[in-house]
Amino acid sequence: MPGLFWIVPIAGVLTMLFVLWLARDVLKRDSGTPKMREIGDMIFQGAWAFMKRQYSTIAMFAVVVAVVIGVLVGVLGHNQPGYSGFDIAWRTSVAFLVGALCSGFAGFAGMYIAVKSNVRCASASQRSLREAVTVALRGGGVAGFLITAMSLIGVTAIFFAFGGYDKPDIAPNLIVGFGFGASFVALFAQLGGGIYTKAADVGADLVGKVESGIPEDDPRNPAVIADLVGDNVGDCAGRGADLFESTAAENIGAMILGIAVYVVTKNVVWILFPLVVRGFGMIASMVGLISVKANEKENPMNALNRGYYVALVLSVVGLFVSVHYMLNKDLGGKEYWLFGAGLVGIAASIIVVYITRYYTEFRYRPVKEIAEASKTGPATNIIAGLSVGFETTFATAMIIGVSLMLAYWFGTQSGIAGAGAFGTAVATMGMLMTCPYILTMDAFGPITDNANGINEMAGAGPEIRKVTDRLDAVGNTTKALTKGYALVSAGLAAFLLFQAYLDRVSIIKFGTPGEYTVVDIARVEVFVGALLAAMVVYLFSGMAIKAVGKTAGKIIEEVRRQFRADPEILNPKDPKNPHKPDYAKAVDITARAALREMVAPGLLPVLAPVIVGLVFKWMNYDAPMVVAGFLMVGTIGGIMMASFMNNGGGAWDNAKKMIEDGQLKDEKGNVLGKKTPAHAAAVVGDTIGDPLKDTAGPSLHVLIKLLATVTLVLVPLFIK
Amino acid sequence: MPGLFWIVPIAGVLTMLFVLWLARDVLKRDSGTPKMREIGDMIFQGAWAFMKRQYSTIAMFAVVVAVVIGVLVGVLGHNQPGYSGFDIAWRTSVAFLVGALCSGFAGFAGMYIAVKSNVRCASASQRSLREAVTVALRGGGVAGFLITAMSLIGVTAIFFAFGGYDKPDIAPNLIVGFGFGASFVALFAQLGGGIYTKAADVGADLVGKVESGIPEDDPRNPAVIADLVGDNVGDCAGRGADLFESTAAENIGAMILGIAVYVVTKNVVWILFPLVVRGFGMIASMVGLISVKANEKENPMNALNRGYYVALVLSVVGLFVSVHYMLNKDLGGKEYWLFGAGLVGIAASIIVVYITRYYTEFRYRPVKEIAEASKTGPATNIIAGLSVGFETTFATAMIIGVSLMLAYWFGTQSGIAGAGAFGTAVATMGMLMTCPYILTMDAFGPITDNANGINEMAGAGPEIRKVTDRLDAVGNTTKALTKGYALVSAGLAAFLLFQAYLDRVSIIKFGTPGEYTVVDIARVEVFVGALLAAMVVYLFSGMAIKAVGKTAGKIIEEVRRQFRADPEILNPKDPKNPHKPDYAKAVDITARAALREMVAPGLLPVLAPVIVGLVFKWMNYDAPMVVAGFLMVGTIGGIMMASFMNNGGGAWDNAKKMIEDGQLKDEKGNVLGKKTPAHAAAVVGDTIGDPLKDTAGPSLHVLIKLLATVTLVLVPLFIK
Repeated sequence: MPGLFWIVPIAGVLTMLFVLWLARDVLKRDSGTPKMREIGDMIFQGAWAFMKRQYSTIAMFAVVVAVVIGVLVGVLGHNQPGYSGFDIAWRTSVAFLVGALCSGFAGFAGMYIAVKSNVRCASASQRSLREAVTVALRGGGVAGFLITAMSLIGVTAIFFAFGGYDKPDIAPNLIVGFGFGASFVALFAQLGGGIYTKAADVGADLVGKVESGIPEDDPRNPAVIADLVGDNVGDCAGRGADLFESTAAENIGAMILGIAVYVVTKNVVWILFPLVVRGFGMIASMVGLISVKANEKENPMNALNRGYYVALVLSVVGLFVSVHYMLNKDLGGKEYWLFGAGLVGIAASIIVVYITRYYTEFRYRPVKEIAEASKTGPATNIIAGLSVGFETTFATAMIIGVSLMLAYWFGTQSGIAGAGAFGTAVATMGMLMTCPYILTMDAFGPITDNANGINEMAGAGPEIRKVTDRLDAVGNTTKALTKGYALVSAGLAAFLLFQAYLDRVSIIKFGTPGEYTVVDIARVEVFVGALLAAMVVYLFSGMAIKAVGKTAGKIIEEVRRQFRADPEILNPKDPKNPHKPDYAKAVDITARAALREMVAPGLLPVLAPVIVGLVFKWMNYDAPMVVAGFLMVGTIGGIMMASFMNNGGGAWDNAKKMIEDGQLKDEKGNVLGKKTPAHAAAVVGDTIGDPLKDTAGPSLHVLIKLLATVTLVLVPLFIK
Repeated sequence: MPGLFWIVPIAGVLTMLFVLWLARDVLKRDSGTPKMREIGDMIFQGAWAFMKRQYSTIAMFAVVVAVVIGVLVGVLGHNQPGYSGFDIAWRTSVAFLVGALCSGFAGFAGMYIAVKSNVRCASASQRSLREAVTVALRGGGVAGFLITAMSLIGVTAIFFAFGGYDKPDIAPNLIVGFGFGASFVALFAQLGGGIYTKAADVGADLVGKVESGIPEDDPRNPAVIADLVGDNVGDCAGRGADLFESTAAENIGAMILGIAVYVVTKNVVWILFPLVVRGFGMIASMVGLISVKANEKENPMNALNRGYYVALVLSVVGLFVSVHYMLNKDLGGKEYWLFGAGLVGIAASIIVVYITRYYTEFRYRPVKEIAEASKTGPATNIIAGLSVGFETTFATAMIIGVSLMLAYWFGTQSGIAGAGAFGTAVATMGMLMTCPYILTMDAFGPITDNANGINEMAGAGPEIRKVTDRLDAVGNTTKALTKGYALVSAGLAAFLLFQAYLDRVSIIKFGTPGEYTVVDIARVEVFVGALLAAMVVYLFSGMAIKAVGKTAGKIIEEVRRQFRADPEILNPKDPKNPHKPDYAKAVDITARAALREMVAPGLLPVLAPVIVGLVFKWMNYDAPMVVAGFLMVGTIGGIMMASFMNNGGGAWDNAKKMIEDGQLKDEKGNVLGKKTPAHAAAVVGDTIGDPLKDTAGPSLHVLIKLLATVTLVLVPLFIK
């Protein structure tokens, strides 16, 4: 095999075995008391039912889209050297379906284990913090590693199926459909899950905490199971699909950029390089995960961080080995510049952690400001939160901007063809090497959140609650970090995907990459395309948060209906044997509404670039350039909006937690804690932040990449 | 004089006479009871003191900036045909100061009359609605017409002072400083005024209505005068400076585009054309204003609309005459395509009215949705408002996008050099022809708002209150319309300013326009510049709304202090002779805080493009292109954000009004009016919307144009 390519199958097989071992380890553990198992089963059934229904809907859409792509590319497309338009069309459609299928499978399997882990984590929390951390981490690891492995194996397999070594300069162009399939599923998974989770959360809180005055996660609340289900389908399955997509799109885009070098050097390692780096990253992450040993005394976050640093150091080694052994032949010493570009990506992944923590932890100024503003009511709390959220775009833009400039410059120094863009690709590879570990930490969040909820509902003692409370707080931090990571990596990946797009236009128009490079935003049509893209970001965000509001309305109605129909749910005559609410009904109604509401915002970013491209083509403009402008400014707009929403939402959330924690004081030094007007104001802020940070924001990461993959796939349509 | 140029001095002189007549007419009217005069005087003194202090600060900054520009352009700049770098430098500085001075004078004078009009409007409301409308409209007209006249006269005078007919191809490049001076003043005027008005509003409400339970505009509230002052300095002076800037920048930009045609045809009318069109527009607006006759029975808005349509029809005629007599010689029949382009702009100014009304009046879906969402509390109200605000970007982007494409296409058909861009310039001219009328309607808002407040404080009877209440409601609508108009015209003007920027780069680099045309956003440095620009929009917005929060905090402290120091302010022992609060102290504290807080957000958009340009120049990139990318994507981002803020804020405001109006009902058909939880929720939404729609949003219009003028002026710095 050329270069170090043998690492790819080895990493793939190893990871799959690792996933099986993790799953077996988690499943064989004690699943707690019958009461806990009962609650766990309800969550499992709710999540499973939602996922089944959600993915049936997505599958239906996906088949339609696959056919439409096939027909459009077949009829309107162009022949390419070695392939007829028809060949390209069916291969794109098949790749799309395979990508969609892999994403779906990874989501389902990861979710299955995550939902099975929560009750085991709750049970483990009765024995020790250390065991609870182990269970949550291993359960999360199944999702994290399976997702990354499926992406690597899927891209590699389809690369070989569509030509592989025989046509290494053409195959990557045929597998772009895989990335589109993955992002298509990811968008609906994230949107549907995000709408579900926040509608359930907002609905359960408004009608439970606010209207009926019962605590969070109280078993009398009919929406409580829906709320717990939501954590899994939104945070876990949604983010998994998001990063599955990131890794796939990054691999494919980087392979397309590799073609430009391959055309000159005829050395296939340039196309295989991204796969090898990913392989090393998976092994590094595996070792990192195994190394985590939580300590009863310390903050569990420290243990997770140690594991992360192990994964990072090994990634640096793996990157160096890949660069040294694969690229030396063609670059003769200059390959270390590309190693530098990779280090830029790895550094970015560390910096983003610190910045996210600054903006969302209550030790620092931003969250403190929001908590202070809560003293004068919800309006000032929200004004403060908006201004913090807006402010965070500075850090996001600087990380992405500086990383891109540096990586591009490092790339240029290496002297290969299209070297600057390849430098940004290597930076993205570097950043995404630790993706399995990051995803594991992300899935840690909903598992511990659920474990905490199960303990509450099962009436566990305060000592045990303390353990899962601590884990839950860690989970909130890891969820925020993953969002920052996903956003910055999406920003870096975007630039390489633009270049891949331009290369693809060039190949179709001129038969060779690198001939079509200019996107002139001073042309009126490109400027208008860019304006429309910026608008789509706002429109999409508006639709997503409106969907949460509408779905929450349905849940509120249902809970009110149950309380009216049977008042003994809330106030049982016999407290030992209360009437049970109909949890399943609430779950079902939430699911139906969430799935209905995800359709319109989901279709918008798929259709908008296609419509823009076709309309401007029909008007005889240079449509591929208009679409490129749309793509680039849409990406910029999406990054900014997501940064505002993710970090602002996180800051609102933690301002509320800070007040609940008793850390806010009035002028006289009295603690302003729960049940004060300041707390009520902070709850309003948190409720507004919820759909921003868990529905619209994360969906925007996917939107950014979906814009890139949909345009990459449909390029042939836009060219006259 | 060439072409119809004689219309410019005639329109200028006529307008000045008209302004004098309006001012005399208003000032000679009855100024009401001693009580009303006393209140009016307090507002006048507060506004005057604030303006004086604000403009002293601005003047200081302006002098510094003028010197810095002179030195920078002199040292780092380039010689141009006919002028040394030094010549250009001092002329730019002088033009900057003249622009700043004109803007300041127009603001002061308009403001003076507006503040004198409010008490006369209150007095007139005791006699008839018709007279009250007349007073408010004529008072507003002083501001509206003076501002536009100053802009036209200023640009024309400085054009002749710097060469005029002798060097028509160079003079416009020397007067770009005028536009920068105008936008520099406008930014600080809008920011300072916007922070003042909303901080006073939020502060007075929170501590008055919410904490102490006294009604709005109650004389016991120490912040009530500050609130009334705010309406004048924010809405009236701020928006006036904004549109002064728009008209100046549009004229200068269009003259620079005209150079490209002049170079070919040697016909100076191409450079004078924008001034002539503006002249016709002023006359059309004058006739429109004179034609307004309010009817006691009907909605006063209809009377204003009739006047607007008169102005529009006359503008169409004026535009046709200008095109027909001035451009026929060179285009021989094809000039009517440019008339078409102008019609596009006029059509845009009509459509924007309907769209703004759809999103902000409570007859329509968007505001109804927000009011409905208030039933479940402030959180759902705000989520609904955000989603409506986000949605409005669609309409804004479509109007601007379609207008640009159409105007560009019409321009191209005329066949002149740089014709497409010139088409968009003519569209902007068309749109801005009715600017004096629109500005008059805008100033109508704060005058009637103040008249209403004076009536409340002077204890006028319910019949009289009804008259000013009706006018106040109309004023809210006209304020919203002006914002939509200002935003869309800024969007159209932006594109012509980009082209002027590129032409200026071309002239400096190559000695002739039209050689430097490409802004390639696919280059990493341009992409990063664009990303930074999008970020600056968020950062600026965050700083602006945070400034409101901070300033409001100061006012709240002061009001609380006064209530504590003398409880008899709130609950007088002798109700006939209550203790008076210290209004002046509250006004003074607000002014100090607002002026301090305007500095940082004001400097950001001035410095950001300069820093970006110089850093990228230092790094050896094509800095003028990076700055162009910054400018274009910053414009796009600013338009979208402003659309969200202006319309979302307006919708929140009117959702509250809808509830106060008794138009919201619960399931059982009971009215949910004032003092219900739904109303409280809507008040929170309105309070959040306030700094968005009256501070950050309008400041963003100015920011968009300031980015254009600052880069236009500092182009020489960015070129190696």
